[in-house]
Amino acid sequence: MNYSVIVEVTLRPGIADPEGATIERALPTLGFSGVSLVRAGKLFRFSIDADSPENALATAQSLAERLLSNPVIEDAVARLDEGR
Amino acid sequence: MNYSVIVEVTLRPGIADPEGATIERALPTLGFSGVSLVRAGKLFRFSIDADSPENALATAQSLAERLLSNPVIEDAVARLDEGR
Repeated sequence: MNYSVIVEVTLRPGIADPEGATIERALPTLGFSGVSLVRAGKLFRFSIDADSPENALATAQSLAERLLSNPVIEDAVARLDEGR
Repeated sequence: MNYSVIVEVTLRPGIADPEGATIERALPTLGFSGVSLVRAGKLFRFSIDADSPENALATAQSLAERLLSNPVIEDAVARLDEGR
């Protein structure tokens, strides 16, 4: 069966995030106040053919840690996309 | 009050996704089979100071559509981060 999976890759706490910092600095000029702690990350969606949701998630987590993220500076979390 | 918000920016259906296609092509060589429909996107987390969760979400959605995404090719969805 095919399972739809989402992987979120975010920078670990404490790692500098120049993209997030740039967005945060630009916001007040663009009319948005009160926004802080902006962090930018990556999102991957894919479909996995597996025999159970647990196996799909395990494959996705392994793939996320080994290929989609840099474990030195990033955290990767896989979850099933319940929406579809 | 401060609300933690997550914005997901994904390519609209039908828009070519070279990053996702490259990942998908590389996976079998790297030992992962049965993975398809890989789509890459962006993820932003931030904190918004607002007087209600509805207002926080409305500000985040407006910010996401106007500044964090290109509405011609991307969809942006804001949601409250229930986790924290």
